Amino acid sequence: MYKNLDNTRLNAILAKEQARYEEYKAMNLKLDMSRGKPCKEQLDLSMEMLDCINSKSNLVRGVDYRNYGLADGIPELKELFGKLLGGLCKDEIIVAYNASLNLMYDTIQRAMQFGILGGKPWNKEEKLKWLCPVPGYDRHFAITELFGFEMINVPCDENGPDMDMIEELVKDPAVKGIWCVPKYSNPMGIIYSDEVVRRLASLKPSAKDFRIMWDNAYMVHSLYGQDELLDIYAEAKKCGNEDIVYMFGSTSKVTFSGAGVAFMAGSKANMDDARKYMSKQSIGPDKVSQLMHAAYFNSVESIYAHMEKHAAILRPKFEAVLEILEEEFWNTGIATWNKPRGGYFISCFLAEGTAKRTVALAKEAGVVFTGAGATYPYKNDPNDSNVRIAPTLPPMEELITAMRIFCCCAKVAYLEKITQ
Amino acid sequence: MYKNLDNTRLNAILAKEQARYEEYKAMNLKLDMSRGKPCKEQLDLSMEMLDCINSKSNLVRGVDYRNYGLADGIPELKELFGKLLGGLCKDEIIVAYNASLNLMYDTIQRAMQFGILGGKPWNKEEKLKWLCPVPGYDRHFAITELFGFEMINVPCDENGPDMDMIEELVKDPAVKGIWCVPKYSNPMGIIYSDEVVRRLASLKPSAKDFRIMWDNAYMVHSLYGQDELLDIYAEAKKCGNEDIVYMFGSTSKVTFSGAGVAFMAGSKANMDDARKYMSKQSIGPDKVSQLMHAAYFNSVESIYAHMEKHAAILRPKFEAVLEILEEEFWNTGIATWNKPRGGYFISCFLAEGTAKRTVALAKEAGVVFTGAGATYPYKNDPNDSNVRIAPTLPPMEELITAMRIFCCCAKVAYLEKITQ
Repeated sequence: MYKNLDNTRLNAILAKEQARYEEYKAMNLKLDMSRGKPCKEQLDLSMEMLDCINSKSNLVRGVDYRNYGLADGIPELKELFGKLLGGLCKDEIIVAYNASLNLMYDTIQRAMQFGILGGKPWNKEEKLKWLCPVPGYDRHFAITELFGFEMINVPCDENGPDMDMIEELVKDPAVKGIWCVPKYSNPMGIIYSDEVVRRLASLKPSAKDFRIMWDNAYMVHSLYGQDELLDIYAEAKKCGNEDIVYMFGSTSKVTFSGAGVAFMAGSKANMDDARKYMSKQSIGPDKVSQLMHAAYFNSVESIYAHMEKHAAILRPKFEAVLEILEEEFWNTGIATWNKPRGGYFISCFLAEGTAKRTVALAKEAGVVFTGAGATYPYKNDPNDSNVRIAPTLPPMEELITAMRIFCCCAKVAYLEKITQ
Repeated sequence: MYKNLDNTRLNAILAKEQARYEEYKAMNLKLDMSRGKPCKEQLDLSMEMLDCINSKSNLVRGVDYRNYGLADGIPELKELFGKLLGGLCKDEIIVAYNASLNLMYDTIQRAMQFGILGGKPWNKEEKLKWLCPVPGYDRHFAITELFGFEMINVPCDENGPDMDMIEELVKDPAVKGIWCVPKYSNPMGIIYSDEVVRRLASLKPSAKDFRIMWDNAYMVHSLYGQDELLDIYAEAKKCGNEDIVYMFGSTSKVTFSGAGVAFMAGSKANMDDARKYMSKQSIGPDKVSQLMHAAYFNSVESIYAHMEKHAAILRPKFEAVLEILEEEFWNTGIATWNKPRGGYFISCFLAEGTAKRTVALAKEAGVVFTGAGATYPYKNDPNDSNVRIAPTLPPMEELITAMRIFCCCAKVAYLEKITQ
């Protein structure tokens, strides 16, 4: 453990790591570890989907899928995703857009402008607050920041966000919602425990229009077989609380990122409320893309089978990262990290006050990591500790180099700090 | 002319038309003339586009088009549509969504929530007004109605909207914008004259954030060769007014309705303003669909050539409608209509106070027309006169039957009224 070593010894290690750092710098690398993007091999997996529709295809299925109509998605996908979500009926699901962020943003914008289920528009509230389990997804926080919410950090452990704290916070009527990535969370890789899901589902916030934004982005993105996540909507129904949750998901990391299909789901009341405005906003979704997805995935099982292929590509990458972290940080006491069973990230907590410096050093050596702090509201990590590692995009060799550099930088940052 | 006939004669004609109406009713028809949808033969024209992308395609063009990135559209389409719009640079265009209505709705929603170019959010204005050339597009009016604008009717003649009236109205700082379909307008088929375009381009409204929503939906949808429309953006630039206009368009009625590609265009300042918020709302557009379109249309000329094929299908339909209108209404003096050179509609003005009754009679006989009034804000045609005829969707035989029934109903409605 570094903290048990004397200054002479620490300076010696620092000198060694600095020398190593200079060697890395001399390699003139240009590696990008910043975003949770699928790699080429993953994208190649779905190329055959593009053969599912061609000029010989019959696109007239009662409704002509090449024409206007089916404003809230094609029945084939509503059924498929409805099954994936545990058996929803067609009124409880909307399939629209090429990715789910748009659905989430629009949902909050609608609440701001028009209110929810006839309630007061959020724009007319004095003060707006939002709960943000941390660390979390930067694009979520960017939306609630844009709309002027005061974002409140809620710490997470391996079971999910701190429910005692949440149950206390929702007594404030200014608190209008919470972001959740409940399965293989971004970036912690947490699967919310049954108890956390049940307590979320049965929340009784002061604000009647409080909503859980249940971004189930990685619902099928397992590395070691499907793990169970309790069905929040079913739990909410049990306690007459079914309007509390909007569920979101997409095939962004199943088929193509940007050319996927996305859905939102929840109570008929919530969905009808959304449909009312969406019918003014849009003439309907891209039914050709939707039908192509439906032709490629004709069952829930076919989605799971497809995700197995993703897992086969990603497992070695995640395991390589974990091995390097273990080897490099063994007996240093300067870092902890999660070992996710799915999702897109490994979340690394460095010694307090060293994340920014670590990422800056890595950048100087040609390796871009997600900005330190990006996983917190206002890009402000109060401990300057968390770094999100995205192992999916780089080829294995680059990934290994990037991770070696990351660990070296983290050590330099720590040793610089305590030997000052 | 009916108005010159005596009551005996009118009653005789009414009896004849009523008998004819009963015959139509006995046919138990079910025809839909209500929406401007392309017909099967038109949709068939673009089927080969679906072969432009398959599993063998190279989708990696510097950027991997199957992955995140290119948030405001692929360069191929920005160039193509930029050329179509008279030579825009890439900063002046955003290609996004599967249809343009979404871009228009979002543009107004952004202005409501955030203001334009740093201006006051429209939500914070006391009073909002919007100019609506009439008759016009019902989906436009539905958007400005939803956001609470007081919509002001602006009459149109064959040159476009009444510019004297508009120049007067924009002195009111509450007036924030105007809807325009400048070429083969919906439903009048008008091409705005050079003078109208110039006067719009050089407007100096009291509201600095007044915007022209230039929905050039039918820019290439000609029946008799391309007609010229003056370039409003070029004109606006000439007088230092380039921020006044947002231009919109799509391939909804070029390729597939709902599975097309759409764009918005205008000054770099306006587009950057939109990009700022779109980058929070979306991870970017469907680049696979965009690339498929770009592969199918590799030049502006190829778009024009494709539209010629649409015209060949639509010309006989439009001409059949016009022939029937002329024959049926000849010497009655109870209807006028436009003879469009493109677009999707023929706009028929019936005798005052008879449009609703005509559409209701037609519906009773199994033929659905666009609701009378739908072409006016609040669905309120002050003269109860305008009916939008959409000749594109039905097969020729059905179209002819539907039009015969329409004319019969219009006569019955008129004769009922004046013989009462």
